[in-house]
Amino acid sequence: MKRIAFSLVTLATLAGILAFTPAASGDADEEAAPIYGIKLPAGYRDWALISVANVGGPINDIRAKLGNDVAMRAFREGRLPFPDGTIIARLAYQQVTSEENNNAIRPFAEKQLPPEQVKKLLDGSFVAGPPTNVQFMVKDSVKYASTGGWGFAQFNNGKPADEATIKTCFACHQPAKDHDFVFTRYAP
Amino acid sequence: MKRIAFSLVTLATLAGILAFTPAASGDADEEAAPIYGIKLPAGYRDWALISVANVGGPINDIRAKLGNDVAMRAFREGRLPFPDGTIIARLAYQQVTSEENNNAIRPFAEKQLPPEQVKKLLDGSFVAGPPTNVQFMVKDSVKYASTGGWGFAQFNNGKPADEATIKTCFACHQPAKDHDFVFTRYAP
Repeated sequence: MKRIAFSLVTLATLAGILAFTPAASGDADEEAAPIYGIKLPAGYRDWALISVANVGGPINDIRAKLGNDVAMRAFREGRLPFPDGTIIARLAYQQVTSEENNNAIRPFAEKQLPPEQVKKLLDGSFVAGPPTNVQFMVKDSVKYASTGGWGFAQFNNGKPADEATIKTCFACHQPAKDHDFVFTRYAP
Repeated sequence: MKRIAFSLVTLATLAGILAFTPAASGDADEEAAPIYGIKLPAGYRDWALISVANVGGPINDIRAKLGNDVAMRAFREGRLPFPDGTIIARLAYQQVTSEENNNAIRPFAEKQLPPEQVKKLLDGSFVAGPPTNVQFMVKDSVKYASTGGWGFAQFNNGKPADEATIKTCFACHQPAKDHDFVFTRYAP
């Protein structure tokens, strides 16, 4: 049990259930994340949406992928590999139940569904709770030549994650090699 | 059974499981949605992210709320009621399994979790599939005075939803009256 509890921390770090409060981004004196030397990109929270996803328990998060202008253009044009200057941001939040939302859905659901299906509908409905962490992929085919042209970073509460965490990024993205190591597809 | 199948269409219309392909927005000759006369807002797909959410089966969607500049400022300042000019967009997608994502997560999960928890993690992980529909709330305290200052619209495949659908919007938003009829909270 102890082994499982401990190792969950590693999985949590990978997928983002650490406490997190977003910091203002773009400060020149901000700390860079290890290995790839990436700082929190300025203005990333205003970037356009690439797509959304979620990860099941014990992670239980709901996440949005945002892209800078270079990224959005590449996604929309279906351009591969992604050009230098591409930055993809992954924002993750704890997936939580909203009683307010469920109270709104319930009367409509009850008119149209048997009780067990109403329960299934509401039990499976979630909103974004507290943020967990933010991850980035930055394309620079020269600087990051040894990792497919991508640099990786993660920030917890505005602070860079440790080296052990960042070391896992590229290996985890290998299954997406045929899509330039990017899992996310553009959601129109 | 027939009754359930039929009524599911109504619920589906409300929550968005109709087939949908996004159209270019902002054309002057575009058709306006009924009742409130709202056209597909130009450039909405590039707006910033307010938050993300999902709705359980039989709807099974994953959704993003985007806001225009007026909306984003109001959300970030916690301003209520939302000022005139606010537009909130709700984009919804079928929630589907990504084998590629699951193949990436599996080896890490298997090192750290017992098999039944790996299954739970992967079974609960989804990405955005085909889009369903897009809904909008537009704030105009004069024009839409009788519905809390909000006009509502839904577009399926770029085409406005019918009047019966749009008629349900304001009633459904009543439980959020204390938050100016807006369910979504800003996700930092």
